[in-house]
Amino acid sequence: MSEFEKSTVDPAAREMLGKAKKIGYLTTFERAKAQEPRCAFGNTGICCRICMQGPCRIIPKKPGANKGICGAADYTIVARNTVRLIAGGAAAHSDHGRHIATTVLHVAEGHAKDYKINDTAKLMKVAQRIGIATEGKPVNEVAKEVASAALLDFGRLDSSPCTWLETTLTEGRRKKFKDTTIMTSSINGSIAELLHQTHMGVDSDPVNIIFNGLKVALGDLDGEYLATDLSDVLFGTPTPTVSEANLGVLDPEMVNICVHGHNPLLSQMVVDVARQMQDEAKAVGAKGIKLSGICCTGNEVLMRAGVAIATNFATQELAIMTGLVDAVVVDVQCIMPSLRSLAECFHTKIITTMPISKIPGAYHYEFDEEHAAESAKAIIRLAIDTYKLRDAKKIERPDLKNKVIAGFSLEAILDIFSKINPDRPISVLTDAIKAGEIKGVALFAGCNNLKGTHNENHLEIAKQMAANDVFMIATGCAGQAYAMNGLLTPEAVEAYAGPGLKAFIGRLNAKADLTTGLPLIFHMGSCVDNSRTVALLTMMANEMGVDTPQVPFVASAPEPMSEKAVAIGSWFVAMGIPVHIGVIAPVTGSDLVHGVVTQIAKDVFGGHFIMETDHQKAGEKLLAALNERNWKLRIHNEAAAKYSQTEQVV
Amino acid sequence: MSEFEKSTVDPAAREMLGKAKKIGYLTTFERAKAQEPRCAFGNTGICCRICMQGPCRIIPKKPGANKGICGAADYTIVARNTVRLIAGGAAAHSDHGRHIATTVLHVAEGHAKDYKINDTAKLMKVAQRIGIATEGKPVNEVAKEVASAALLDFGRLDSSPCTWLETTLTEGRRKKFKDTTIMTSSINGSIAELLHQTHMGVDSDPVNIIFNGLKVALGDLDGEYLATDLSDVLFGTPTPTVSEANLGVLDPEMVNICVHGHNPLLSQMVVDVARQMQDEAKAVGAKGIKLSGICCTGNEVLMRAGVAIATNFATQELAIMTGLVDAVVVDVQCIMPSLRSLAECFHTKIITTMPISKIPGAYHYEFDEEHAAESAKAIIRLAIDTYKLRDAKKIERPDLKNKVIAGFSLEAILDIFSKINPDRPISVLTDAIKAGEIKGVALFAGCNNLKGTHNENHLEIAKQMAANDVFMIATGCAGQAYAMNGLLTPEAVEAYAGPGLKAFIGRLNAKADLTTGLPLIFHMGSCVDNSRTVALLTMMANEMGVDTPQVPFVASAPEPMSEKAVAIGSWFVAMGIPVHIGVIAPVTGSDLVHGVVTQIAKDVFGGHFIMETDHQKAGEKLLAALNERNWKLRIHNEAAAKYSQTEQVV
Repeated sequence: MSEFEKSTVDPAAREMLGKAKKIGYLTTFERAKAQEPRCAFGNTGICCRICMQGPCRIIPKKPGANKGICGAADYTIVARNTVRLIAGGAAAHSDHGRHIATTVLHVAEGHAKDYKINDTAKLMKVAQRIGIATEGKPVNEVAKEVASAALLDFGRLDSSPCTWLETTLTEGRRKKFKDTTIMTSSINGSIAELLHQTHMGVDSDPVNIIFNGLKVALGDLDGEYLATDLSDVLFGTPTPTVSEANLGVLDPEMVNICVHGHNPLLSQMVVDVARQMQDEAKAVGAKGIKLSGICCTGNEVLMRAGVAIATNFATQELAIMTGLVDAVVVDVQCIMPSLRSLAECFHTKIITTMPISKIPGAYHYEFDEEHAAESAKAIIRLAIDTYKLRDAKKIERPDLKNKVIAGFSLEAILDIFSKINPDRPISVLTDAIKAGEIKGVALFAGCNNLKGTHNENHLEIAKQMAANDVFMIATGCAGQAYAMNGLLTPEAVEAYAGPGLKAFIGRLNAKADLTTGLPLIFHMGSCVDNSRTVALLTMMANEMGVDTPQVPFVASAPEPMSEKAVAIGSWFVAMGIPVHIGVIAPVTGSDLVHGVVTQIAKDVFGGHFIMETDHQKAGEKLLAALNERNWKLRIHNEAAAKYSQTEQVV
Repeated sequence: MSEFEKSTVDPAAREMLGKAKKIGYLTTFERAKAQEPRCAFGNTGICCRICMQGPCRIIPKKPGANKGICGAADYTIVARNTVRLIAGGAAAHSDHGRHIATTVLHVAEGHAKDYKINDTAKLMKVAQRIGIATEGKPVNEVAKEVASAALLDFGRLDSSPCTWLETTLTEGRRKKFKDTTIMTSSINGSIAELLHQTHMGVDSDPVNIIFNGLKVALGDLDGEYLATDLSDVLFGTPTPTVSEANLGVLDPEMVNICVHGHNPLLSQMVVDVARQMQDEAKAVGAKGIKLSGICCTGNEVLMRAGVAIATNFATQELAIMTGLVDAVVVDVQCIMPSLRSLAECFHTKIITTMPISKIPGAYHYEFDEEHAAESAKAIIRLAIDTYKLRDAKKIERPDLKNKVIAGFSLEAILDIFSKINPDRPISVLTDAIKAGEIKGVALFAGCNNLKGTHNENHLEIAKQMAANDVFMIATGCAGQAYAMNGLLTPEAVEAYAGPGLKAFIGRLNAKADLTTGLPLIFHMGSCVDNSRTVALLTMMANEMGVDTPQVPFVASAPEPMSEKAVAIGSWFVAMGIPVHIGVIAPVTGSDLVHGVVTQIAKDVFGGHFIMETDHQKAGEKLLAALNERNWKLRIHNEAAAKYSQTEQVV
């Protein structure tokens, strides 16, 4: 039994935690323990720091302290704190999208010459979808109009809906969002308005606050959607690719560069430029340059270029701990500031690249869109130089890596389905659900959260779903957890899939015409690529002739951590989807708000949050949600039972 | 000695606190005591709740807890928390401005017919200032262009500067803000970007975070400035007016309606309509309708219509406690949710009016711009109906009200100056400083904060400044504190002004040609009207041939509470002004951030924060700051000494 079995289920990570202990470095795992027990006020959402009279902490039985100094009740405080998390998440996702859209605009205008419109077909498809005429127009003109439409979604001044929301959702959802006044007009405008609404002495009605929180969450979706679309336009729409994952991908004989963060603008450039610079690496005695990814910028380059995954969020420090990483190049989001102090113990260089994302003491090579390739080259040269400083005595690499089949954009999935049904590819999936062969679709998304054991919830819930014939898709650090642990492989289908799921994937395999078998879980990309998953959901709803709340589709963030996860979960609820989260969100300080997000939301939108830290119970609840939907769709249990290996608890 | 002397210096408030005790209601004063002692982590800024792994609390000596779980140091956490306060403040102020600008646009387009362009001269002045041609254009066309320019400041997509910032500041400040990359392009865009920057795992560099925080603060200034300009366009630019203040303004024989909040769109309409509805009030036995104001919507209608001030922020509940208030009509910001539960003990109706500002259980009459007068009438009728329910047994009114001379827009002040120097009115002020007659200008702004004694810092610091010949201006709840306690009167000049200030105001009085003497402190309006004060500062700098950091001008928020106060204070620091705050801001958990805001800021921008809770010391520090500037301007101390009553500590 490993000393670190409560910390992580990942064998490579356990090995590195042993090394950390040996050298006396307190990793994020130790820091998480040091924060125990969490402050009960903050942890349940009833600490208010929105004005400077506080902090106010709700103590129900203390006279005068059952409300804040202003008189705000627990429900007001919890609602405000919650929606401000949504605002942070929406700001992060959408700013990433805005950055991509701005670059597309600049490319179309003849600037940013190191980039080009890579996927013209996707550009035309997006243009047509959002109502931009394409016939006879030069590609750059179309790109300019599409990018401008995207940017308008950030700053629209009238009350017409955001273009991406208006042109991608089901008719039912659009009507619902308009009826409930949560249809977003401006991503940035809705964020600013929400901060106003939650300012001291403005709104104290938790339901009103939560509704506007959902408006901001839909802005998050809009930003994600256009980020995905325009990233595909710039860098290509992902297709199935074979790669590998876990710390064993770090190559002792190569210059190892980890790209880390979320935005592919720089990381994709690093990938492109590195190919041309292998000789420079050889000149210092290395066999070449080995790139690997951490977090979602890693997912972006995995999806499009087959770059290996080093590790996911919670274990990012452990990549450096191997002594093999020459440089970590970071852009934005989920980058632990501790990387820099840890790098002091090794030869590793930490290189920040974005003006709004610096780390004191790190190298800052500011990303310059006009000279993107040059920026990337300078960074790679620094890594090559640093390789020479590697200290052999400090090297310890876990001998673990797993094969990965990834690259499943929606287009790629539909392409496979079309081998079975070229006219209505999506019906391959929906018919399998109707027939009871599979129970529905489960999306696994989100982060790591060290309130639990690293990657455990990700892996265990997925295995349970697999055994119960649920078709699975994944994004973000969830996708990486599966990559690191061998679940994105055909072998995992054999090992874990129930008979229905096995049969379904088998039928796809038979026709897919790929050089490899299909994996147990279809990795659809980074966290902004949850837009791909909602596009799949929408397509399923339209094919089934229902709205999204009727589709047997569930989402789970088994280990949610970031504000982005709160935003994603919230818009999935608004889309009508049961959303499991594997930590208890800071809303339990108000029975009212807790009730709204876990129950009443279902009456209004069809979706609701399921908070469950225990993976066995979480799986059962997700299966129950799918069964409920299947039952409502009048699918005979007999048909389902035929394919079911395990009886589920409903 | 009153039992409540530590609670408030206001005799009327003390009386009402006695009544609250008698009826067993725990007011905000009791709730503030119940929150003692404040959480030391939150109170010093080192509690991070930006992701769901936390809350993380920095405990320097506990291994692993000296940083957050992600590795964020105290300085990162404090910087993030601080700038997110700025974001909340900027969002609130600017959303108010956006609301006004939208209404002006609608009026110009022929909608919102209950409103009209009231001050065409101001409209033309603003248009010309921002570069819009006016000659030969219909008023509505100019209004449309000005309103559209204002709205563009919220959603600009390129990097050109916000129009109001670009056209109102000194050349030196514009250059400084561009050089330091904090010139704002889009108010809402900068807020969203700042939330991204402070998302988990993005920026950990406190200086970089604070700089972008200042960019958002400048967005706050832009929003305030256009709010003031366009409110003047819609409702008229204030001119000197005589009114009264404190709870004694509530009239036992009248229907009492308190307008409370910040946005004049509804409150000004209530004022206009109430004039026509006196007979309806008489029909139920009242002598008429008496309006009074709380917080800044009160300041707006005081400035333009002479409406009395009932009380300020901390004592808002005490207005209801009199048993005389039939309705409190609220719009946005600084409205205690407790008003509603307190109203249960009386006959008072609480009426919310804005879609983003509701209170559970309150009457909600949603403000409808297209039928604004009708909305106002319905609200007033509810108040008249409610008057009939008044319970004589519950009535207890403090017999205290003070005369108020207010309405000092910058235009009004310059108009007075122009009686002495018609060619260069502002030189009347700057020459008096150069001559040593007065030491400079002190602005008092901001809220109440029950970490101290209500109104005490406001009053005591101002008296100290007066004795030391400082010309004083005020906004917000500070202005109301002076109104409530008789400092906005000619009598206060006699009682408190030093010989220089007395001589200066005397010279103005001799020429001002008003029906009343001028007050000790010039009340310039609501909290968004801090834009008027920065216009005065800018005019002084230009007249003196220096940039704003050289002008003998200081600002003080003696009792700051809201996020808006943090935003205002921050942009005043960027404008080069020493800014006193009378509470210790939650930044002391990081020596680095504390040093940046209290010291290093001065090297970069010329302004800095002075945190001092003791009013005597605060006054001394403000005087020292003025003296330093005067000394640097080579004003001979001899000249100053001639007019100085008291020696100050430098």
